Amino acid sequence: MGKPTVRLKDIADKTGFSANTVSLALRHSPRIPKETRELIQAAADELNYLPNQIAKSLVSRETKTIGLVLTQMTNPVLTMTAQAIELALSEQGYVTMFATSNNTLDDEKRVVEMFRARQVDGMLIYPRSHQRLDHVRRLRQSGYPVVVMVGKPEGIDSVAVDNYSGAVKATEHLLSLGHKRIGILDGQNPRGDLDKSLGFRDALKRHGIEVDEALTADPKVPGADAGYRAMGELMQASPRPTAVFCSTDTAAIGAEKWCLEHGLRVPEDVAIIGFDNVEFSGYATVPISSINYDVENVSRQAVKRLMELIKADHQLPEPAHTMIDPELVVRASTGGQA
Amino acid sequence: MGKPTVRLKDIADKTGFSANTVSLALRHSPRIPKETRELIQAAADELNYLPNQIAKSLVSRETKTIGLVLTQMTNPVLTMTAQAIELALSEQGYVTMFATSNNTLDDEKRVVEMFRARQVDGMLIYPRSHQRLDHVRRLRQSGYPVVVMVGKPEGIDSVAVDNYSGAVKATEHLLSLGHKRIGILDGQNPRGDLDKSLGFRDALKRHGIEVDEALTADPKVPGADAGYRAMGELMQASPRPTAVFCSTDTAAIGAEKWCLEHGLRVPEDVAIIGFDNVEFSGYATVPISSINYDVENVSRQAVKRLMELIKADHQLPEPAHTMIDPELVVRASTGGQA
Repeated sequence: MGKPTVRLKDIADKTGFSANTVSLALRHSPRIPKETRELIQAAADELNYLPNQIAKSLVSRETKTIGLVLTQMTNPVLTMTAQAIELALSEQGYVTMFATSNNTLDDEKRVVEMFRARQVDGMLIYPRSHQRLDHVRRLRQSGYPVVVMVGKPEGIDSVAVDNYSGAVKATEHLLSLGHKRIGILDGQNPRGDLDKSLGFRDALKRHGIEVDEALTADPKVPGADAGYRAMGELMQASPRPTAVFCSTDTAAIGAEKWCLEHGLRVPEDVAIIGFDNVEFSGYATVPISSINYDVENVSRQAVKRLMELIKADHQLPEPAHTMIDPELVVRASTGGQA
Repeated sequence: MGKPTVRLKDIADKTGFSANTVSLALRHSPRIPKETRELIQAAADELNYLPNQIAKSLVSRETKTIGLVLTQMTNPVLTMTAQAIELALSEQGYVTMFATSNNTLDDEKRVVEMFRARQVDGMLIYPRSHQRLDHVRRLRQSGYPVVVMVGKPEGIDSVAVDNYSGAVKATEHLLSLGHKRIGILDGQNPRGDLDKSLGFRDALKRHGIEVDEALTADPKVPGADAGYRAMGELMQASPRPTAVFCSTDTAAIGAEKWCLEHGLRVPEDVAIIGFDNVEFSGYATVPISSINYDVENVSRQAVKRLMELIKADHQLPEPAHTMIDPELVVRASTGGQA
């Protein structure tokens, strides 16, 4: 692969201007007439000149690049947040690089190390596990700016949606409608994202309702198909639930389809509520109630905190946690207006 | 930001082993007993040791990293492909870095340059415009491995779904059902992705049907809401269309909702077909016919070609184009089985 580096001198030779003039022109200096700048830029383009950014960043010790670690690319909520984070970082003059952990801890460690080797100025991480964060904690302890996007992990800054509070709100909404036999579709997530399940259970308990384990089912993988299958399982319970809380809207869309295809009316026979408020929830046959959170607010807060860490002079401030409280959106699937 | 680099010597000092032993242990050499390796690895972790990958890659001239440029993160088809590309690259031992151009040419040029400055071994690019690809062509001409994911651009390798052929198939399906007054919802994309619109027009012409410009509407932005609004516009035409080809499934989901809310039956009054075959199309009130393509096949082919370019010894081979032909999926929205 012959890729000879093009130097300022090559552009100078080609155009007849001095290397100094070429350098000023490429940095858009007003000292160089516009026509000359354009001529030099055209020659640079033609020669395929690339400013040596790595050399530049070795001087400034900044790469103006942030690494964003996602668990996967196919979760619409995650990618919506990622897009908002990228826009917020772009406003601060930073480029965002993404990498995904494919929901495995090994890959997560690998991409974190890869980002660090590439000297990103900081990282935002959606970790695979809320509990296995030692590798991130070490990063933080070594003085590296990092913000995780879940929970309130000890010793690490975090900005996250309060999933526990959202699940309580969804469950209390169903309770307020008079439901007592309430099921849950939730990834029983052995890796520790139990907040939604805990919120559901605590809300029931506070209303004196014992959780019936026959009314829980696990879609195991993301997507509406998995929600459809899990709903089929859940509805084998006898007596069947009169309401179901789904931990994602995509699962809820599948669950609703299962009901309608099996002659059950939504919400008259089974009320359904999801989580995330994705656009398609409003387009389901019976529009689906959900838990909404302001993705842009989450993104802004995370970027704001990361910037504080990056700009800290000598020592990082104490880790801080920001929880965004989500809100209930009532649609026809729990009896609200469509 | 004090981040002193941890060296092999620091680990040697801490553990009492020689730097040579430490180096072998960290490279998992079988010459070092397992217990010693674990002890040294633990010390390395504690000191937050990071193998100097940049130094390593300067020797091998490879970074084992690929840059993937997306137009946006919120397009489910794009992110599904991105995920599949990442998996395929991972099998080849490469890490994928993503960056988005936010659908602007300036940002696209910026992220391409950023990836190059970071010395990725090659790039896969979803360009903003099918026509403005000079910056990518220059990259290719300088011997840089790059594959674009649309069309058949001159002088650049490409692997892409044949959108023209897909649009022809969708339109011919509607024609075969006897429809003559057929509308189209398509982003009239001044930046050049006219393949779907062209396929639609050519199919009509071949059947002797003049395209009625009153039967075209532009959702302008992605999403079901935009499809809903554009359908409202399109249906002002008099007489109104009896069938509509939507250039994305998300637009089709919005279009169907508009019909059902305005007392029109799908497919009896208006037949609807989309493009992309996203999961939710099967979950619409009337499941939506679509054009499907094998995302994994597209991803595999693109990665295969990129690997050929990266492994080319001295000079890159002549640019090659691969077009993936998509297929029709008939559902209830055009009268198929649900």
